[in-house]
Amino acid sequence: MVSVTFKVGGTEVLLHASEGDNLLAAAQRANVAIDAPCSGNGACGKCKVKLVSGELDSPRTRHISDEEYAAGWRLSCVSRLVSDVTVEVPDIASAYRSRMKVADISSEKELAIFNQTKAEIVEAGIGFGTNLSAVTVAMDAPSADDTMPDNERLAWKLKELTGAQKIVLCFVALKKLARVLRESDFTVRCVIETEDERVTVLDVLPASDPAPIAGLVVDLGTTSVAAILVNLENGSILAKASTGNGQIRYGADVINRIIESGREGGSERLQRAVIDESLRPLIQEMCASAKLNPRQVYRMCLAGNTTMNHLLLGLDAEPVRMDPYIPSFFHADDIRASSLHLGLHPEAKLILAPNIGSYVGGDITAGAFASMLWNREELSLFIDLGTNGELVFGNNEFMMSCACSAGPAFEGGDISCGMRATDGAIDSCTIDRETMEPSFTTIGNTEHPVGICGSGIIDVIAELFRAGIINGKGKFSREGRRIRRDEHGMGSYVLAFKEDSGAVRDVEINEVDIDNFIRAKGAIFSATMTMLGSMGMDPSVLGHVYVAGGIGSGINMQNAVTIGMLPDIDPALFSYIGNSSLSGAYAMLTSSAAREKVDELARGMTYLELSTEPGYMDAFVAACFLPHTDANLFPSVGTAIS
Amino acid sequence: MVSVTFKVGGTEVLLHASEGDNLLAAAQRANVAIDAPCSGNGACGKCKVKLVSGELDSPRTRHISDEEYAAGWRLSCVSRLVSDVTVEVPDIASAYRSRMKVADISSEKELAIFNQTKAEIVEAGIGFGTNLSAVTVAMDAPSADDTMPDNERLAWKLKELTGAQKIVLCFVALKKLARVLRESDFTVRCVIETEDERVTVLDVLPASDPAPIAGLVVDLGTTSVAAILVNLENGSILAKASTGNGQIRYGADVINRIIESGREGGSERLQRAVIDESLRPLIQEMCASAKLNPRQVYRMCLAGNTTMNHLLLGLDAEPVRMDPYIPSFFHADDIRASSLHLGLHPEAKLILAPNIGSYVGGDITAGAFASMLWNREELSLFIDLGTNGELVFGNNEFMMSCACSAGPAFEGGDISCGMRATDGAIDSCTIDRETMEPSFTTIGNTEHPVGICGSGIIDVIAELFRAGIINGKGKFSREGRRIRRDEHGMGSYVLAFKEDSGAVRDVEINEVDIDNFIRAKGAIFSATMTMLGSMGMDPSVLGHVYVAGGIGSGINMQNAVTIGMLPDIDPALFSYIGNSSLSGAYAMLTSSAAREKVDELARGMTYLELSTEPGYMDAFVAACFLPHTDANLFPSVGTAIS
Repeated sequence: MVSVTFKVGGTEVLLHASEGDNLLAAAQRANVAIDAPCSGNGACGKCKVKLVSGELDSPRTRHISDEEYAAGWRLSCVSRLVSDVTVEVPDIASAYRSRMKVADISSEKELAIFNQTKAEIVEAGIGFGTNLSAVTVAMDAPSADDTMPDNERLAWKLKELTGAQKIVLCFVALKKLARVLRESDFTVRCVIETEDERVTVLDVLPASDPAPIAGLVVDLGTTSVAAILVNLENGSILAKASTGNGQIRYGADVINRIIESGREGGSERLQRAVIDESLRPLIQEMCASAKLNPRQVYRMCLAGNTTMNHLLLGLDAEPVRMDPYIPSFFHADDIRASSLHLGLHPEAKLILAPNIGSYVGGDITAGAFASMLWNREELSLFIDLGTNGELVFGNNEFMMSCACSAGPAFEGGDISCGMRATDGAIDSCTIDRETMEPSFTTIGNTEHPVGICGSGIIDVIAELFRAGIINGKGKFSREGRRIRRDEHGMGSYVLAFKEDSGAVRDVEINEVDIDNFIRAKGAIFSATMTMLGSMGMDPSVLGHVYVAGGIGSGINMQNAVTIGMLPDIDPALFSYIGNSSLSGAYAMLTSSAAREKVDELARGMTYLELSTEPGYMDAFVAACFLPHTDANLFPSVGTAIS
Repeated sequence: MVSVTFKVGGTEVLLHASEGDNLLAAAQRANVAIDAPCSGNGACGKCKVKLVSGELDSPRTRHISDEEYAAGWRLSCVSRLVSDVTVEVPDIASAYRSRMKVADISSEKELAIFNQTKAEIVEAGIGFGTNLSAVTVAMDAPSADDTMPDNERLAWKLKELTGAQKIVLCFVALKKLARVLRESDFTVRCVIETEDERVTVLDVLPASDPAPIAGLVVDLGTTSVAAILVNLENGSILAKASTGNGQIRYGADVINRIIESGREGGSERLQRAVIDESLRPLIQEMCASAKLNPRQVYRMCLAGNTTMNHLLLGLDAEPVRMDPYIPSFFHADDIRASSLHLGLHPEAKLILAPNIGSYVGGDITAGAFASMLWNREELSLFIDLGTNGELVFGNNEFMMSCACSAGPAFEGGDISCGMRATDGAIDSCTIDRETMEPSFTTIGNTEHPVGICGSGIIDVIAELFRAGIINGKGKFSREGRRIRRDEHGMGSYVLAFKEDSGAVRDVEINEVDIDNFIRAKGAIFSATMTMLGSMGMDPSVLGHVYVAGGIGSGINMQNAVTIGMLPDIDPALFSYIGNSSLSGAYAMLTSSAAREKVDELARGMTYLELSTEPGYMDAFVAACFLPHTDANLFPSVGTAIS
């Protein structure tokens, strides 16, 4: 036995392990959070720890420079325990929260897109309003001649006010009833749910309580989580927040997460990670800013992919990834917040946007709803650029969906200087074809760039390609002041030298980054072609393409075509529609009609399983090139590249 | 500040308190359990602790002998802190469990009474059976051509089997669904609740799981708790158990408990005491003996008085005792086991026998049902001899109820050698009028008597009175070998000398015990007379008197008349019907028809509030005499006393 001491932030965790044990596995056993998006297979280089004392059997890898190795840095997933050691672990919990900060609906532009979606939903005849409401009830105080018990006194009056046949007081409301009635002279505000002839009283508040009846909307992504707090009485936004998905340290994509969940205690660990590290902090942050008690949040709607939904609920997700790919549920309709320890009102109903396949989930059904594709005659394509890339093709007569694994590149993950579309991110860029000097904009017009978000990466790659700095394979083919080569000859392009810009680090993009991005865009493009092809169609049929996701509203559609990510059609046919999962979930929370519509769309939507679709893998390989191995698919790109 | 160290069992609890603080209050703050049935007013003498080091400002009281005082024993409720102290606290938790062990349905005689009640219920046309059942569901395993998600697969088949329109899978069932389906080849046993067209799946078990679908019945008394575990599929009893109510250290009667619940954190303390110390241990004990996982207990029915119901649920009980005496509820129908942390299936429904007034609760509605009074033409009286004495008078046309505070004497509480009707208890006794020598029987025919249960106390007092050893005031008026006098002249009668019987202590009864019992019987008799009087009737109208409660099946009705507890009518008209709350709650658990009948009876039952009824106090004072200050009410007693 050897002992391992992990130093994380201000705390130390001591663990006894066997000689030869893997360090990352040991850390996970001790519930010490080490970032391991590739689930510990040595690929991503994120699980670095610093050896403080003792020895580790740990090879140098390409992820660790000589200086770093000398300073004690080791990759934990390839380190084996050989003696007592003390290691320092970077505090990733707080790192995530800043790195993964999402801008959704925070900027004017995003808010405008959100309001546009709202307006279109109303135009389509989907009315707002749900079966949840607040009603003020004034009762006579009891007396010696009127000794009706409190709950009957309330029920009697509520029947009169609502016409309901049956009133059910939920336990938490019963528990506080005597006190609230007497403190507010028997005039109270009840939060009620109405179903047929039955009214359920969720809460009893003093009539003078000014707090709004609130609801929560969550877009639970594989990489990041965005949420808004809503006033259910008028639909207004009370607060917005976003963070990283705390599960990321167990794997960057859904497959690695499912593998982790299948290990001893894994479901529980993944559930706790997303609830304790992502959802509850988001809820607390938003409620604090809105000055609201989280127990006065009475309903929640969440859009996530099928795997995220399973892991959130603590369900066994293994069957989702194993042939024949069977989830536990598409719809789940009896989940209350108390089951998940979210800190909301215990009886708050959790509405999950419905899944329609193992890899097409509630994020896409909510998103497809928000795209309004189902309300138009023209054939359109909806693309959600997430870690799971998801596509819906159709119109008001049919809808077909598919999903592909794009990885986190669109959200800045797997990119050395990548970041989400938030302040300090380079979100657009041009490069002079002669001098190779860049000019770029940053979100928030910050003085110094911090990194590059998805839309910026598209621009940089498109511009590097146009300028002939990189070739179709994404390899550097020119040299210059901004081109660097490492000891293995791997090229990189420096967008901003820290000396010039005063930034904390050089902002650059290297061949590995470009390769990761090419695979991401290749997955999206090949999925598009395979889905259209399955119906004997090609991109020329498209009346519109709606692009959604955390890539940022700065996305340059022409550049996305240039790199071969989007099909080569008229640029005017593309629209960026923001975080459509979030706006779709918002609609489901605030409108029963929207919820019914989403359920109807989900039931009617067909699902194309790409992994078993002949030709998909070939299409993917062919698409991993700039813009594509078949240049005929991108006639406009040949022209654009001078 | 002074520090107090409490030594309880093997553990020590350290508390800092102010000089002058009351020791009992300090113990309660530190959640140290000291027995204080009188709620700390110096009356009962139960809160003794032993001073190990330091000083206490603590007077000698009549409850502590010179030897005890010298050995360090102090009454904690009259002790004030003046220095750092260490005190030893008797471990009352385990003391309760043995002292309060209840024999209900354990003896042949009790079981026969229980089965008789069951038979009478069926005879009255109340069928057994509820909306909870188990159904075996065999599904096809999923395949590439049949990719329906698990929950839809199950729901589809269940609709076919049950004809239900809507299937709701509760969250805990959804959570285990994938695993159970795959481990049992898609053939499972579902525990379902059917309501109208809707079926709720509470649990999904492997088809091979042999465990019964179980339910729990609880009689939650102020002093003691009895429970049975039932196989819901055939009504058979799987296990039985009983214990003391853990709340007793906060007060012996409902008033003292309510006062305690009104203190800071009091509701929570009282709720935890009854759940953590009484209900959960009972459940664990019974499930262990039945080899059943407590999470496979799917429904629970509890009969308790109005205050016990409120304190169990953690509700504010203050309005129950304050004019105009308003409870939070009579009926409560949306409580699941998870809200109370009982360890049962989280969605197990908690059925509470309905209350009908502040002091007439579910114990009496369940009990009145089990008495079958409502099914007979003759006018009858039902008396539940509990800490709260409760009475119902009526027939198949009307029912009227009232309640009085009898204290715990009937269950052996407030009696120095008192105990519940269980092994070792003297349950019947005669005393030679000349020699004053007793002869008695013990429950279980144990070699040595351990104490006296309620029926034994009735016999002893009746016999002492008949023999002229005590007078009508309960004071000793003869002397002899078995009569003792303490330093204050207080008399006592020794039933068994420890030297003679080899018992661990003398078993005796003293004037304080007799006085406590006289007040208890006086409360019952005066309630009887006041209720009958309110309708212009007297005991001559009674066709039958049903006596229920933990007093024991050995009750000698003639002796109960002799001491003036029951009205002086033909002894053949009295029946002991056992723990009627428990048998009534059993019927409610196992029969929807019984549950509806109890609700109907409760709605129709009128409630006479004795505390505001003119003449009740006078009647009570007049009844605190043997047999009564008005000897004309007991013509047979004059004859019986030679």
